[in-house]
Amino acid sequence: MGRITDRIAALGLQLPPPLIIPDGADLPFAFAHRVGTRVLIAGHGPQGSDGTLVGPFGKVGTEVDISAARHAAGLTGLSMLASVQAEIGDLDRIVGWGRVFGMVNSAPGFHAQPEVINGFSEIIYRIFGTDIGRHVRSAIGVAELPWNLSVEIEGELLIDG
Amino acid sequence: MGRITDRIAALGLQLPPPLIIPDGADLPFAFAHRVGTRVLIAGHGPQGSDGTLVGPFGKVGTEVDISAARHAAGLTGLSMLASVQAEIGDLDRIVGWGRVFGMVNSAPGFHAQPEVINGFSEIIYRIFGTDIGRHVRSAIGVAELPWNLSVEIEGELLIDG
Amino acid sequence: MGRITDRIAALGLQLPPPLIIPDGADLPFAFAHRVGTRVLIAGHGPQGSDGTLVGPFGKVGTEVDISAARHAAGLTGLSMLASVQAEIGDLDRIVGWGRVFGMVNSAPGFHAQPEVINGFSEIIYRIFGTDIGRHVRSAIGVAELPWNLSVEIEGELLIDG
Repeated sequence: MGRITDRIAALGLQLPPPLIIPDGADLPFAFAHRVGTRVLIAGHGPQGSDGTLVGPFGKVGTEVDISAARHAAGLTGLSMLASVQAEIGDLDRIVGWGRVFGMVNSAPGFHAQPEVINGFSEIIYRIFGTDIGRHVRSAIGVAELPWNLSVEIEGELLIDG
Repeated sequence: MGRITDRIAALGLQLPPPLIIPDGADLPFAFAHRVGTRVLIAGHGPQGSDGTLVGPFGKVGTEVDISAARHAAGLTGLSMLASVQAEIGDLDRIVGWGRVFGMVNSAPGFHAQPEVINGFSEIIYRIFGTDIGRHVRSAIGVAELPWNLSVEIEGELLIDG
Repeated sequence: MGRITDRIAALGLQLPPPLIIPDGADLPFAFAHRVGTRVLIAGHGPQGSDGTLVGPFGKVGTEVDISAARHAAGLTGLSMLASVQAEIGDLDRIVGWGRVFGMVNSAPGFHAQPEVINGFSEIIYRIFGTDIGRHVRSAIGVAELPWNLSVEIEGELLIDG
């Protein structure tokens, strides 16, 4: 166990197991990809403790309320960290966060995308602190997401050489 | 004053003051974040000279016309530069632009996203010239944006070591 | 001719000629931009062998079916490679792929964005193999795209020093 893994456990959180690919889907790409000192992170959704993608599914603002979407954004952060761990082995190698791009499956007229993606940012700050966890972010409303996910997030972080 | 700051003034432009966060909003992330020689820039919207986010708000193609949205894209560029200046101190350190991602709050059937985001690119070229200002770009139509902004832009640029 | 160029020909594929800009459009940005060992790639759409943007245009899920959109995603990959070649001269310099961001012009209720963008990933893997071609990816449904394209993709790859 490492410092970050311990911290995740101490917060009562857990990283999900590898994604159980939805029936019929083919996802021919890496979920995290190290290029030099950068780790690029594919678009992720929230995973349950069994590894499946979890809901609530649908449009935030009508079918999904803000607090449920915010929770999903936090789970998405944990899913991203699990993919990073699988790629680099040890989360203690992370020395900084970079860009975060949060996409919210938004009902017409829904404008609280930042509040939803705050569920991600808060998890990251709780785990990494505000120095290593510091990141830039966009939060936007997209028309549709794969499997009708409520939230999808991609990003990038930095590791030691 | 530096070369770029002088150039902005000579063009009759000005960088906005720090963002006045909209009532009730919590934006727990960096607006610009230096990682090595890269400066990552969060999603920004247009700011007025008082620091608030400014309109016109709503969907481009119906509620907002192209020329107003194009002007908003230019203001967004100035807002991004203000955030970069706060992060790195001196805009003269910028040696190149990188990726620009322009998101237009688009009415159904509106397809002139590039024309809107040209308001950003033109400001950047006027300030930095076509060599340092050279950038790649996407311009897309999103379903919704925070606070019903008409335009949101994120990007990345490069500074000296 | 180089190894990658030969490979493209052997697969029965071809890179399109430089983009013929649609009437009335002004695209004041680089289609690919080298920054150090990274090559940033602007948002591209599918091109025909005459250099024009090609359809099918419209929303995937209603106006455009999945297999046509998937084919368009593959053509988009070839268009991106043509821009990269124009920027760096020799595609054999590519040592790795990085981030890929796939945007699908999606009809309401359409959720098979990954299947569409697979048309891109498959082309990349066929040309570069799964080692150099390895990439992270997001696939999302956007509200509108320029010229009513069905697919737009941006990305980043790595070249030798």
